[in-house]
Amino acid sequence: MQFQPDLDSTSEVPLYRQLGGYVQRLIQSGELQAGDRLPPTRELAGQLGLNRTTVSAAYEWLEQEGLIQGAVGRGSFVLAQTPSAPRLPIQSYGIDWGRSLTPSMFVSSGSPAANVIDFSSSRPSEALFPLQEFRECCAEVLVDRRLQSLLQLGSPLGHLPLRRWLLERARQQGVAGENDDILITNGCQQAVDILRRALTQPGTRVAIEEPVYPGLRNLFIDAGAELIGVPVTGEGMDLYGLRRALEAGAKVVVVTPSFQNPTGATIPAAARSALAAMTRAAGAVVIENDIYSDLVYDGAPLPKLKSFDADVIMLGSFSKIAFPGVRVGWIIAPKPVIARAAELKQLTDLHTDQLSQAFLLHFAESGRLGRHEGTVIAAGREKLRAVEQACMRYLPECSYIVPGGGMNMWIDLPAGLDSGALRGLARQAGVDYLPGRYFSVSRSLDGGLRLSFAGLESAAIRRGIEILGEVIRNATTSRDEASRPTLAFV
Amino acid sequence: MQFQPDLDSTSEVPLYRQLGGYVQRLIQSGELQAGDRLPPTRELAGQLGLNRTTVSAAYEWLEQEGLIQGAVGRGSFVLAQTPSAPRLPIQSYGIDWGRSLTPSMFVSSGSPAANVIDFSSSRPSEALFPLQEFRECCAEVLVDRRLQSLLQLGSPLGHLPLRRWLLERARQQGVAGENDDILITNGCQQAVDILRRALTQPGTRVAIEEPVYPGLRNLFIDAGAELIGVPVTGEGMDLYGLRRALEAGAKVVVVTPSFQNPTGATIPAAARSALAAMTRAAGAVVIENDIYSDLVYDGAPLPKLKSFDADVIMLGSFSKIAFPGVRVGWIIAPKPVIARAAELKQLTDLHTDQLSQAFLLHFAESGRLGRHEGTVIAAGREKLRAVEQACMRYLPECSYIVPGGGMNMWIDLPAGLDSGALRGLARQAGVDYLPGRYFSVSRSLDGGLRLSFAGLESAAIRRGIEILGEVIRNATTSRDEASRPTLAFV
Repeated sequence: MQFQPDLDSTSEVPLYRQLGGYVQRLIQSGELQAGDRLPPTRELAGQLGLNRTTVSAAYEWLEQEGLIQGAVGRGSFVLAQTPSAPRLPIQSYGIDWGRSLTPSMFVSSGSPAANVIDFSSSRPSEALFPLQEFRECCAEVLVDRRLQSLLQLGSPLGHLPLRRWLLERARQQGVAGENDDILITNGCQQAVDILRRALTQPGTRVAIEEPVYPGLRNLFIDAGAELIGVPVTGEGMDLYGLRRALEAGAKVVVVTPSFQNPTGATIPAAARSALAAMTRAAGAVVIENDIYSDLVYDGAPLPKLKSFDADVIMLGSFSKIAFPGVRVGWIIAPKPVIARAAELKQLTDLHTDQLSQAFLLHFAESGRLGRHEGTVIAAGREKLRAVEQACMRYLPECSYIVPGGGMNMWIDLPAGLDSGALRGLARQAGVDYLPGRYFSVSRSLDGGLRLSFAGLESAAIRRGIEILGEVIRNATTSRDEASRPTLAFV
Repeated sequence: MQFQPDLDSTSEVPLYRQLGGYVQRLIQSGELQAGDRLPPTRELAGQLGLNRTTVSAAYEWLEQEGLIQGAVGRGSFVLAQTPSAPRLPIQSYGIDWGRSLTPSMFVSSGSPAANVIDFSSSRPSEALFPLQEFRECCAEVLVDRRLQSLLQLGSPLGHLPLRRWLLERARQQGVAGENDDILITNGCQQAVDILRRALTQPGTRVAIEEPVYPGLRNLFIDAGAELIGVPVTGEGMDLYGLRRALEAGAKVVVVTPSFQNPTGATIPAAARSALAAMTRAAGAVVIENDIYSDLVYDGAPLPKLKSFDADVIMLGSFSKIAFPGVRVGWIIAPKPVIARAAELKQLTDLHTDQLSQAFLLHFAESGRLGRHEGTVIAAGREKLRAVEQACMRYLPECSYIVPGGGMNMWIDLPAGLDSGALRGLARQAGVDYLPGRYFSVSRSLDGGLRLSFAGLESAAIRRGIEILGEVIRNATTSRDEASRPTLAFV
């Protein structure tokens, strides 16, 4: 059959995802049947006037979704589908399936393939979880006579003792003043989503870093905000780029000053001050995503943006130190912002789970969090050293900046290599990562990739980077052929 | 000073809330200062051409917000405010403060006044929480070697063993088929909010019951949906009203067939079948809010709407039986709906707290939930009998239908009495409830009120209704004066 997708190159939605959605609908509607062969990527790219990597990315996405299966040398085939409900008319109610984002796009779901060293997931190491300490902590909370009230409905603002503890800590750090208040959320993802609802409407211009954590980008895209990607340099969000974004009308700026995901980049102190002044002068609201700043392996922590401008909205979480499965994060911001955010929090889900809030508070108050943080930082320092040594040894042709903390770093491949195309080879060779395109706002980032190292042991890090180096070396030898334009081959 | 609010009687936002928001802004901007006296309600009502109860409601709201304080015979005064951040320019970014809803509007925050018998909060009785059973259950989960993976990032769809258990139960009940899937949410409030995002956009017409649970109404209002209130009769959502709503273009219907909040009304089996057929023929999506149906104190459970139409989206939760502070609910729906809902869930907050999911699953699997349900139902039956007897004895002039289960019932006051105006007197006399206006969509419900009885002991129920009866009797004697029009007295 002839593929005739209605692609919109001006859309916020990447072309490969538009194409993937089109094929998905063909499969779901039965126009493509199990066993049907999809056109070769080169052929379809030529036919549609697309870059071949765009088609490959669409096919990769369809494969992740379980809709097709690729076999080397034989092309890609449609898999048998579980029949979907025949009548449900939701397509007419504003679900733009083409715009739909899939879970697998930003958090790898399920476990990685066996024997693959997995750099694709930005999460703390499970092996470091202090299970016995956590069990003791929970037992102490559960035995408390206040358990009864924890199990009853709570406040949208969060568990009061936890709010007091966090606010007091922020005051001691000089980042919360008398005009600030705090709202507890289900982790930082919900904090950003609630602020998105409070501060933007469809068409509001929002400046975010590029490359950026996809979960952050996607929640704005899904809600119809207009994203402006500000390039990230070795010193974090580029201030010239930010100035242009503000001149272009950005009203909200979301920035991760320390150990940004995916680059690991950190904004130096002087630039933080300049960033705060610039956004203040432009009348834009700054959301400071402060979830990695405690993970300093090297050097001292830097002053937070909020210490330069009290109106900055700051997001925090224990998830990068402690337990991401326990969903607790927070927003510290001027009272009117918290008042509106609390309304939205209540509309969204009434309040955050009270038991988890009480567990984490007690984990922190009892000194266990501090001890665990020491363990995580010591381990992170060792991992980072392994990353640094392995990159120097095995990735001599790549560009990268080793971060001073956090969980992620960015690698730029030798010119002409495509991190998306390379991923299949890397997985076959036993290593996985997330290709640059996952983190793109509007620029092509196919030449880069994210290595998330925090969840791995040092030995695995070294071996993984060694394998990656071999894959890259092999690919470099066929680089000229791989990078040849494909449009002429239709 | 002269009050000149810009009120819009065609707005979704009740007039009293618009007026309250106006005065709030005067206070926050400093135009009204601490100690300033507000105009008497009668005077302001005349000046603005409003019903006096509207102004009273606005003042009551301001008092709840801690912005003003009323003193009997001396009027209402502005309280000293904590200064708010001076510059924050968020007002220009689409926050419509006039439309803002406040937390106190739908879940009573904080504890009620001492010595007041509180019928205002729809929640289970804390006294029934089986704390020791819950502690044992948690201990068994925490000691399990799978704790490590519970503390790691999870799936947006929810904890797999819990999903399997719930889906299997739904299959056994004949309400989930092969085409259905399940998504775990942070309680039912989030389930509705996610479906609102999936199924509506600003202007989409949504049919909901009237009176309705405010948290449900407000999340649609806040998102710009156009609500059509369908009257609730003694037999639940009125089918003639529903037909008119569908003819008026309602695309989504949210209905609580069993023990609806706030009325306690239940739709009979035959009407359920008719409702399913009618919505199906109209091509509208039905969201069946099934959170009270297990609380049957009297008679047998009725077939769920979803058993009449597989495309119905069904919402469930343990919160009405077990622990509302542990935020776990779910959506059972055809797979394409769950797929989109899971995307939105991930954008919203990645996934629901894993520890709480594991606790509740084990609580259910180990048989503890079933035992506790038996306790709750036996207690509910006794409470309902207390309600029934006390209403018959102490509220002879009121109209009501005693429900067969659930947590709430609706009382219509004798003609001419206003439940909002009466509330202050009731509180002074030692009993509290939520006035009808809290549950309004577009009609005036000032003549009714909600009694939430599930959280109280039988003795308190009897005494509370006795007090309420006295308050009503006293008010009835001055009814003629109270209901006289006030506009002529300016």
